[in-house]
Amino acid sequence: MSEEDVLAANEAFYRAFNQKDPEAMDAVWARSDSVSCTHPGWNLLTGRDRVMESWHGILTNPGQPKIVTGGATVRFFGNAAVVLCRELVAGSPLAATNIYVREDDSWKLVHHQSGPVSYSPE
Amino acid sequence: MSEEDVLAANEAFYRAFNQKDPEAMDAVWARSDSVSCTHPGWNLLTGRDRVMESWHGILTNPGQPKIVTGGATVRFFGNAAVVLCRELVAGSPLAATNIYVREDDSWKLVHHQSGPVSYSPE
Repeated sequence: MSEEDVLAANEAFYRAFNQKDPEAMDAVWARSDSVSCTHPGWNLLTGRDRVMESWHGILTNPGQPKIVTGGATVRFFGNAAVVLCRELVAGSPLAATNIYVREDDSWKLVHHQSGPVSYSPE
Repeated sequence: MSEEDVLAANEAFYRAFNQKDPEAMDAVWARSDSVSCTHPGWNLLTGRDRVMESWHGILTNPGQPKIVTGGATVRFFGNAAVVLCRELVAGSPLAATNIYVREDDSWKLVHHQSGPVSYSPE
């Protein structure tokens, strides 16, 4: 239940993104809970199939820029952990809320929302 | 711990917004936990003082349009509840992630992120 474990899960999420690895992305997301995802500018997606389909589209898009993240903080709520962090995609700053749950001794993502913000990257 | 109680707290949040009532908005947010808020296009704000200051500015802005919400769903994670819902502000659709914790037999907001999305309002 350490903060380091949650941050490692959060890093695995963004690493799967940058490595454009759909299997690694699939492994990051929970199986025991329903999952949901609001990509920047997209509708809310609910359900594992729709969320994974969205990631497959993003990760197989040759024009998809890499993501740089920073400023991650962790808060625990019972068996859940919330990570707030910054994202930077092709020079555009975004803010993310990532919610993880404990599953088989690992932290797995159940919800991700990212949206554009105004701050400058550090 | 009922879903109805969480939805009532979520409605109180948006009612405080629409009534431009800083005291009601203050009452919606947790005191026992640190709070954080990402308004659409803003930086992440952390800490009760900064979050409340932001709401004061929004609620006292005479040009601030009202908000219409819909599609709220609730998921429980330990002592926290996550509400995902749609927002519509001056014709612009947004998606929100609102995280509530149990405090003195009430659900109180600890984190809000809202960002622009592409869907049409119902």
